[in-house]
Amino acid sequence: MENESILIHGAQVLDAAGPRRGSVLIEGNTIEEVSDALSPGDADTVIDGHGKLLIPGLVNTHTHLSMTLFRGMADDLPLDRWLNDHIWPAEAHLNGEYCHAGALLGCVEMIRSGTTAFNDMYFYMDDVARAVDEAGLRCVLSHGMIDLGDDDKMRAEIRESLRIIRECHGMADGRIKVALGPHSPYTCSEELLRETARLAAEHGVGIHIHVSETENEVREVSEAHGMSPVEYLDSTGVLGPGTVAAHCVWLKENEMEILSERGVKVSHNPSSNMKLASGISPVPELMGRGVNVSIGTDGAASNNNLDMFEEMKTASLLQKVSLHDPTALPAMDVFRMATVNGAKALGVNSGLIEEGGLADIVVLNTRRPHLTPWRKPASHLVYSASGADVDTVICDGRILLLEGELKVLDEEYVMELAEGAAEELTSKQ
Amino acid sequence: MENESILIHGAQVLDAAGPRRGSVLIEGNTIEEVSDALSPGDADTVIDGHGKLLIPGLVNTHTHLSMTLFRGMADDLPLDRWLNDHIWPAEAHLNGEYCHAGALLGCVEMIRSGTTAFNDMYFYMDDVARAVDEAGLRCVLSHGMIDLGDDDKMRAEIRESLRIIRECHGMADGRIKVALGPHSPYTCSEELLRETARLAAEHGVGIHIHVSETENEVREVSEAHGMSPVEYLDSTGVLGPGTVAAHCVWLKENEMEILSERGVKVSHNPSSNMKLASGISPVPELMGRGVNVSIGTDGAASNNNLDMFEEMKTASLLQKVSLHDPTALPAMDVFRMATVNGAKALGVNSGLIEEGGLADIVVLNTRRPHLTPWRKPASHLVYSASGADVDTVICDGRILLLEGELKVLDEEYVMELAEGAAEELTSKQ
Repeated sequence: MENESILIHGAQVLDAAGPRRGSVLIEGNTIEEVSDALSPGDADTVIDGHGKLLIPGLVNTHTHLSMTLFRGMADDLPLDRWLNDHIWPAEAHLNGEYCHAGALLGCVEMIRSGTTAFNDMYFYMDDVARAVDEAGLRCVLSHGMIDLGDDDKMRAEIRESLRIIRECHGMADGRIKVALGPHSPYTCSEELLRETARLAAEHGVGIHIHVSETENEVREVSEAHGMSPVEYLDSTGVLGPGTVAAHCVWLKENEMEILSERGVKVSHNPSSNMKLASGISPVPELMGRGVNVSIGTDGAASNNNLDMFEEMKTASLLQKVSLHDPTALPAMDVFRMATVNGAKALGVNSGLIEEGGLADIVVLNTRRPHLTPWRKPASHLVYSASGADVDTVICDGRILLLEGELKVLDEEYVMELAEGAAEELTSKQ
Repeated sequence: MENESILIHGAQVLDAAGPRRGSVLIEGNTIEEVSDALSPGDADTVIDGHGKLLIPGLVNTHTHLSMTLFRGMADDLPLDRWLNDHIWPAEAHLNGEYCHAGALLGCVEMIRSGTTAFNDMYFYMDDVARAVDEAGLRCVLSHGMIDLGDDDKMRAEIRESLRIIRECHGMADGRIKVALGPHSPYTCSEELLRETARLAAEHGVGIHIHVSETENEVREVSEAHGMSPVEYLDSTGVLGPGTVAAHCVWLKENEMEILSERGVKVSHNPSSNMKLASGISPVPELMGRGVNVSIGTDGAASNNNLDMFEEMKTASLLQKVSLHDPTALPAMDVFRMATVNGAKALGVNSGLIEEGGLADIVVLNTRRPHLTPWRKPASHLVYSASGADVDTVICDGRILLLEGELKVLDEEYVMELAEGAAEELTSKQ
């Protein structure tokens, strides 16, 4: 089914431009035409869009895909116990095969819930790339660099990042890009951050970093550097239009201003921020300052799924209750965050249903009790749908899921592989 | 399939008592045996439980079922515009047929997402009862009484409530019970509230009421009566162990104490409270005082679905972030709220998988990517599952859903009926 022409005929279409009726013709990996005039004879493969809603593939801008292996391993714990007693000990036993298995599982979960592109930071990223290649998805990958001020570690982290750039940047017909992933301002030395900025410019790649996730982090960074995290990061040169800053929960006014001025792309992760009790990101304020805010699920150890539909609802509801304002972050704004804003964050030409755009498309079945009566599509998508309503998924012009049936990977095998890897990891602890 | 014996064989079982392996034998409407020793020859119908999780049917303790017709009609609005410009004008055109259609739709949605019992307050409740009877679900219904201090209206509301008690209490083999439903302390006169307390005792029925949902309500009631809402309600006699108080967002210390002393059952509605920006109920504090807190979705106009799995996750995450405590409302506590606490609120002998209990049972398919690796069942149920993982539903010993196939009602017909009713309602405005 790769690179042939596909016609989705007679669907309702929704993207950031609003709802409309139409048919969508895909040639190769590109949306060739969006029109009323197309007929079923115009393509090799025809998908009947009646009773369905066609949207851009959702973009998940902050993930640690292989952490699907840790799903449900530890919940309801203080952050330090969660990390020290569970996540870090488990991560110490990771290897490339485990990360490959976890990434495959994450890919299947994302395809089934309508995500076509994502921004991943973790370890053994060449093995993650291999999984993404097999799954047919689009992504930006970064090796998570942590040096904690150790020079040798810093050099090793940079070497690994350069290896991943060399081996994976542009692979899978360009579906896979690589970015640099300094973990955060409190786990990376200043030298590593400065080197990251230099290398990103040199190699023409983006940056993916955790910023101001917890109050503790703000305290630590301020004590160490006499500056708040965003000020400090800005002083190292890592903040720019190619930077995706995840979380951004604890921001002062001037930090929001810096993010806006530098064109930094913010990834909002509401479920993770709620589950770990990190706090509430000032999303409407950031957007009011012109910051491109998108949505990420974070890893499955702190969410615990990768369902972007759930994440859209949570994002909206969290702002409404915390700002005491039921008009905050309305459905259409959240839908934009999860589509076109996500695509901008990843620097890919998707996120809209328009001619010339990449053919990353999701089709939902709208004939479901919880989506009846069928009124405003954006409302139903954000407030009532779930990933389970996804019917068909196309990424880069290739059908990954067709009417609920996975066309890539062997789902049973992937689940067994991941189950086995998780068991081995647990037994090693 | 009614009233025969059913065996669910070799499943993992989870209820408030924790996870275990076993088979469950149902005779008539009752759980006859829970044991390892049962074999497939022991029952008329055998359901293979391997790779599945068996839980008590979820109990949704605050709904307005027929409001499914208003799903997506109006979102992201201030409460007064939402009510005055949208909900109330639409409700003015309701009739029994519309409410029946909306209730049928709600029943299908609840069955598909694993809810077997609910607590409903609305209008045309005999038509709602008819829908519940057809759907095979269990419920407590109340006519929502609003008199706004008008004596004639008060008498009419009481007459209607008594009619519903007379016609519907105990119907559908006892699956349907009726309660009295004074809408709230700010929409009911003091006389109506006192009369409610008297009639509830006289007829041996429960009470279902909205309490302290918004800050405005607290201000209004305090100005009118010189007491906070719970103090005021207590003075009228409506607070007792048979009372389900929905929302309970804005509570002072002494009000929590009153709720605890009177044995009032609180229904927590996190999605609705977030979406309408009502506020955050002090759930752990209430539970710490021994109050039975359960979970409700509220109506589909303010949620916008009836998925109790989503509601469990939202309940937990909301407390964690608002209390800055990742240990708040852990998975098992939320699961108890949605099962055994809900059953207690409705006064029905369900909510546990134990011999002699009512056979209200839900079976989930656990072989799903987002539930892999399969670890702590409660964690996966609360933090990663959705209603779409529900495979089989049994209520009162009758199979309503079997391996994803609805055994009651004609789903396509119900969706068409509801779509038609919603269209007519919209056109009348």
